[in-house]
Amino acid sequence: MDKTLIFGHKNPDTDTICSALAYADLKNKLGIRAEPARLGSVSKETQFALDYFNVEAPKLIEKVEDDVKSVILVDHNEFQQSVENIKDVRIAEVIDHHRISNFETSEPLYFRAEPVGCTATILNKMYKENNIPVSKEIAGLLLSAIVSDSLLLKSPTCTKEDVDAAYELAKIAGVNLETYGMEMLQAGADLSDKSVYELLTMDAKEFSMADAKVEIAQVNAVDTAKIYELQHEIDQEIAKIVNEKDLDLFLFVVTDILNNDSEVLALGSGKEKVEAAFDVKLDDNSRALLKGVVSRKKQIVTALTDAFTK
Amino acid sequence: MDKTLIFGHKNPDTDTICSALAYADLKNKLGIRAEPARLGSVSKETQFALDYFNVEAPKLIEKVEDDVKSVILVDHNEFQQSVENIKDVRIAEVIDHHRISNFETSEPLYFRAEPVGCTATILNKMYKENNIPVSKEIAGLLLSAIVSDSLLLKSPTCTKEDVDAAYELAKIAGVNLETYGMEMLQAGADLSDKSVYELLTMDAKEFSMADAKVEIAQVNAVDTAKIYELQHEIDQEIAKIVNEKDLDLFLFVVTDILNNDSEVLALGSGKEKVEAAFDVKLDDNSRALLKGVVSRKKQIVTALTDAFTK
Repeated sequence: MDKTLIFGHKNPDTDTICSALAYADLKNKLGIRAEPARLGSVSKETQFALDYFNVEAPKLIEKVEDDVKSVILVDHNEFQQSVENIKDVRIAEVIDHHRISNFETSEPLYFRAEPVGCTATILNKMYKENNIPVSKEIAGLLLSAIVSDSLLLKSPTCTKEDVDAAYELAKIAGVNLETYGMEMLQAGADLSDKSVYELLTMDAKEFSMADAKVEIAQVNAVDTAKIYELQHEIDQEIAKIVNEKDLDLFLFVVTDILNNDSEVLALGSGKEKVEAAFDVKLDDNSRALLKGVVSRKKQIVTALTDAFTK
Repeated sequence: MDKTLIFGHKNPDTDTICSALAYADLKNKLGIRAEPARLGSVSKETQFALDYFNVEAPKLIEKVEDDVKSVILVDHNEFQQSVENIKDVRIAEVIDHHRISNFETSEPLYFRAEPVGCTATILNKMYKENNIPVSKEIAGLLLSAIVSDSLLLKSPTCTKEDVDAAYELAKIAGVNLETYGMEMLQAGADLSDKSVYELLTMDAKEFSMADAKVEIAQVNAVDTAKIYELQHEIDQEIAKIVNEKDLDLFLFVVTDILNNDSEVLALGSGKEKVEAAFDVKLDDNSRALLKGVVSRKKQIVTALTDAFTK
């Protein structure tokens, strides 16, 4: 079998799911057999986008099976964010927009990382480079990914390339960027049916910072106070996770999608690093408001890595 | 200062030197201040190319100075092959064609690796993508890099893209590919003035393979027997290097540029891994002929890594 599997990171977000779908579409149109997959459940935000553009979610996999010739990683490269048996498979390509860390291969590969706000922006370029027109459905998915990663073009990670791609794709998809984007974000910010455990794991990523093991979970919300009504239960669940995974720090980031701030909760022995990184004081609940901070990648991981490295 | 420094790996070869020169030229033509540099002395082969096309070698640096804003790595990514203080500088870009290993950043960057035979082939594409014509001198340098890395298009690392680029560049440079290429390779294969120590270090690279530390030195030669007349002295020098660097294996690869084979000499506790990797028996001199093996990257590093991992 010469099948290539394309997937994004664990705890998939909209960029990860939509980029896997879009890149598989592009590969297939170029005559290369590729299949999209996902490493976790589909979020409400992503499901909204899939339903809107009438596209099925990629199939869920637990590990890469033996009949797969090679894999393509989208929207991630760090092995701890990837499929369990990533070290046993041939990685043919990576398309990503994150820092590079804990990644290695024994053979040369096609690795394309660009410092843009969203993997979908790179994929939109790749359709053009290959002279393949983007269909209405794929345009909708790529647009949804950009809206999601850039919080409707407001995140500091958002570049001119992302903005241009978003407007271009909205046109092909036949939607109004602002209206569709806010609807999608609000669908994702509806956390009413989530258990505390789900809130802490639905978009959690683990990072190595110097010698420290740090997990950062992020949720988008319209009303951050509402979530912290459950603080007692949240504290207990985080304590369990810290203990199980032997973490130095768990940072729970609740991002207000209307005001573009984040209220964070820090637990673990490394919590004072959060104070150093953002020049804030955690209150008695171990919480702090980070004004203007919405991007885990550009505003949180970088500042925290610096704090742990000093 | 907003200067960007562009350099390739230690023990620079023709691709590393010429790619640094070419990419700095492209950046400058795009209005970005960039300066080429090198981490070691210029080989005879490279000097032949520089003299032929009347281009000065980039300046030699020992470390990245404080006035440098960011660096661009060409033709390598593994930190142990890079400048001493690589961990203290901001890496803005990487353009490479090797495996990815021992590389990490705390921020997203532009990372472009393609599984082609030569960094220069990627750079030739980048000139086109940016609509900047390649000058005669730069065409000569890029061509020299391809000839060097592909042993005149004969290495298994050489792809159709490299071949097409080489013919295209030879035309712009105004030379006959075969004639110029063989002249350049022979200039490099003139080892008459080299000390044994120079032979072992002029193109040596260190690799981590599982838990093992492996150094592989390669020289091109017209007469491999001539080099091994010095075996006794070579053995002594290698023993010193193995001891100083605490290596598990030192592999000396003498590549016959006329017959496209390599005669290797293996020393260190891991030498039986060479037998396993290539299904050969080392003779009493710890040497073996590897028929058809010319590429360190594609034929040697991969097979040895597998042998050390098993």
